[in-house]
Amino acid sequence: MTTRTLEELAALVGGAVVGEPGRAIAGVRTLEDAQPDDLSFYHNRRYLQAALASKAGVLLVSDPAPFPGRDLLVCKDPYAALARLLEVFNPERRPPAGVHPSAVVAVSGRIGEGASVAAHAVIGERVHVGARSVIGACCVIGDDAEVGQDSVLHPNVVIEPRCRVGERCILHAGVVIGSDGFGFATVGGVHRKVPQVGIAVVEDDVELGANVCVDRGALGETRIGRGTKIDNLVQIAHNVKVGEHSLLVAQVGISGSTRLGHHVIMAGQSGAVGHISIGDGAVVTAKTGVTEDVPAGAMVSGFPSRPHKAWLKAMANLFTLEELRRRIKALEDALRTLGGKA
Amino acid sequence: MTTRTLEELAALVGGAVVGEPGRAIAGVRTLEDAQPDDLSFYHNRRYLQAALASKAGVLLVSDPAPFPGRDLLVCKDPYAALARLLEVFNPERRPPAGVHPSAVVAVSGRIGEGASVAAHAVIGERVHVGARSVIGACCVIGDDAEVGQDSVLHPNVVIEPRCRVGERCILHAGVVIGSDGFGFATVGGVHRKVPQVGIAVVEDDVELGANVCVDRGALGETRIGRGTKIDNLVQIAHNVKVGEHSLLVAQVGISGSTRLGHHVIMAGQSGAVGHISIGDGAVVTAKTGVTEDVPAGAMVSGFPSRPHKAWLKAMANLFTLEELRRRIKALEDALRTLGGKA
Amino acid sequence: MTTRTLEELAALVGGAVVGEPGRAIAGVRTLEDAQPDDLSFYHNRRYLQAALASKAGVLLVSDPAPFPGRDLLVCKDPYAALARLLEVFNPERRPPAGVHPSAVVAVSGRIGEGASVAAHAVIGERVHVGARSVIGACCVIGDDAEVGQDSVLHPNVVIEPRCRVGERCILHAGVVIGSDGFGFATVGGVHRKVPQVGIAVVEDDVELGANVCVDRGALGETRIGRGTKIDNLVQIAHNVKVGEHSLLVAQVGISGSTRLGHHVIMAGQSGAVGHISIGDGAVVTAKTGVTEDVPAGAMVSGFPSRPHKAWLKAMANLFTLEELRRRIKALEDALRTLGGKA
Repeated sequence: MTTRTLEELAALVGGAVVGEPGRAIAGVRTLEDAQPDDLSFYHNRRYLQAALASKAGVLLVSDPAPFPGRDLLVCKDPYAALARLLEVFNPERRPPAGVHPSAVVAVSGRIGEGASVAAHAVIGERVHVGARSVIGACCVIGDDAEVGQDSVLHPNVVIEPRCRVGERCILHAGVVIGSDGFGFATVGGVHRKVPQVGIAVVEDDVELGANVCVDRGALGETRIGRGTKIDNLVQIAHNVKVGEHSLLVAQVGISGSTRLGHHVIMAGQSGAVGHISIGDGAVVTAKTGVTEDVPAGAMVSGFPSRPHKAWLKAMANLFTLEELRRRIKALEDALRTLGGKA
Repeated sequence: MTTRTLEELAALVGGAVVGEPGRAIAGVRTLEDAQPDDLSFYHNRRYLQAALASKAGVLLVSDPAPFPGRDLLVCKDPYAALARLLEVFNPERRPPAGVHPSAVVAVSGRIGEGASVAAHAVIGERVHVGARSVIGACCVIGDDAEVGQDSVLHPNVVIEPRCRVGERCILHAGVVIGSDGFGFATVGGVHRKVPQVGIAVVEDDVELGANVCVDRGALGETRIGRGTKIDNLVQIAHNVKVGEHSLLVAQVGISGSTRLGHHVIMAGQSGAVGHISIGDGAVVTAKTGVTEDVPAGAMVSGFPSRPHKAWLKAMANLFTLEELRRRIKALEDALRTLGGKA
Repeated sequence: MTTRTLEELAALVGGAVVGEPGRAIAGVRTLEDAQPDDLSFYHNRRYLQAALASKAGVLLVSDPAPFPGRDLLVCKDPYAALARLLEVFNPERRPPAGVHPSAVVAVSGRIGEGASVAAHAVIGERVHVGARSVIGACCVIGDDAEVGQDSVLHPNVVIEPRCRVGERCILHAGVVIGSDGFGFATVGGVHRKVPQVGIAVVEDDVELGANVCVDRGALGETRIGRGTKIDNLVQIAHNVKVGEHSLLVAQVGISGSTRLGHHVIMAGQSGAVGHISIGDGAVVTAKTGVTEDVPAGAMVSGFPSRPHKAWLKAMANLFTLEELRRRIKALEDALRTLGGKA
């Protein structure tokens, strides 16, 4: 293992050294686990005691004040600096290029230069896997689908026919791209399937968490915009459009044809009904069910969804109803007395 | 690509022609994507502008009024007509019959005539796969399980031993049928597994979305009734019975032994506690948590669940608490003045 | 099939016989399905009529009172007795030891004595699978991962590199252990991946339901404590610690770095924000979103979460707002009259 000096690390991330520039660092570890040759990371006041107690040789911080006498790497954005340092100390190990002999690749499938196809992967007709991409074990890529270059599919990912995944994407295990949307025409009480003939498109630099489902369009496309990151167990229905650089936290569900702008945040277990629009930069808080259009930049909460502040106040008021009831009772009693007197 | 005239299409779906009966149509596309040789589809007032602006050669509509001068296919139920037209223009392509050489089929497994078993599928002892069914790549069907004829299992579906899937079913990628239910007897703080020895049964004409989980019965059966359609990431616990022709939208969860009638609708992210009954034709709105029996035909909302209208009113009232508080304060002030006077 | 007498069964589970000790029992079935040579099980008042109507030869009960004249097996804890009886009548059938020829096991992978590796499983470099463990079809175990002895992985489970699963664990189909956590540093509106270099550890005697996701630590570990049972479709984010003997019901989501004590119960579709602590023995009711630390033994509900009793009262009060509004109106009217008089 090679070590780096604090000074070298500071240069890497554009940070400032406090303390001993020559301090040697061999790795990055949690506050609890770090040893004197490790760097660790302080970013949340909840962990101040842990940071003060940490044996880490260097702390990566935004503010040196709480840590007099310690060797520090001070950065304006320590989380971004952490990302860079982890890349340096934990370089990604991609599997060697080549197709495992147990993989089944259709004759017309094209595997790009330097790409890797793991054991038992199944790649259909006319599929194109881009250069240097990694197709995990037991992944299944349907006919006419496409994976751009430098993307990574973890094991057991399914890409249904004709769907497209861009460049530098990461799809975690169990992701399904292009399952049929939930579309039925009910005639005489029987639900008749509306064929789902569209596709799903995942643009460049998207990351999809484990067991995420992205349905194909009924007609046209479902589309996940460039740079968007989606956490585990999220559901994206048919013809949804998610804009660029949005964040969808675990177990979110978006109903059909709803459009999200860019830089939208949907917190965990939130959802949205179909056929609505959630504007650029909007924030949907955890567990919220969005029931109507959300303006750009708004923050909404609750179900039905409301502006976040109004919802917060309503939630607080909900727990004052006993008091209101008492005050009404007191008024009634007082009025009765008064009325009697009058 | 063959084209069809508007007149031919109208005959196919029992609709009426407005405009040029000989207009040639080559496909069905979204309002945005459609070209003059495409048919498109107008069904939701939100998309009126898009419909008016669409280049589609023919619009499939229920009401011709907003579209004077355009070629129209007018149907009482345009969504059902759309289903039929999509079948015509996008005929399903099933893989050729036969067992891929990389599939592992137990000696006692029986594969019906015309059925297709894809690469790396694993089929256990005494399994029966019905005629013309499609078993996707990397599907695993456990010993003594059964899949009826004309069913389609997308890749990576798991059917655990002894479970049964009916005819004309569609199971999307990642579906798990027959996982153990969540049953534990807690003795002295330790959760001891209650063996789950029942099965799961999926009746005919059922569709299950990607990554849906249907647990096997603890004893007896978990059962999904004929014609029921279930969206992605839904959880069906042990011994649940879902009646016929019900619709369960994405991320719904049904707890153990609960019974749903026929034609029940559970909207997205809703759930039900265990051991209750949800009557025929009941509607459970999004995010609702059903906590008690629901009568047939009722609509319920909220958690704990309440009649939908009462819940709607309560949700509206919740946002008037500030006003009530002000009125109470005004009453108190007025009474104090009055009291002083009296 | 061998039968056992009621007397023998009572001895097995430490219960008392009411009725005919020599009554022969061949199996355990539901109240509805049981025949005179079956034992069935009464534990929930909802099913009293079904129990009275059941043809079961023996009922396993805690209280004999409702069943005069019937053969009974009376146990203080009938659910635990049921677990034991099911083991006796339905002994688990594990597959024969050995590695299926279609499985791909790295040269440096070690498969313990008596372990079974099913068709199309993929086992990476330096993996250790413990003695007598069962690796299902199409499971993928990444490099340097470890599965303890006597564990069962159902089909299509993915264990990412370096993660560890303990002894006597059960992982249902589609489980993903060690997917990357959702960690991004946003710089100039672009979400840069923070490499997730930690691991996920599943301690002994844990059961994980179908399609459960357990992310690896960003740094350090995500850890599921010994004896904890997790239902289907649950999400465990990076660096979460779940204590021993906890129960997480279906579709629960736990955000990053949150710590659960031992014997915590989280009911279905509940969740917790990140960086909080939920104390030993705490209960989180269904659909609740825990937003702050929960003391040991507390029961919390709602979102934001509140003590359960306060929440119950608030939910009830919510539906009395119409009445409060009427009373305020009456007070206003009365005061106006009075004021006029005064």
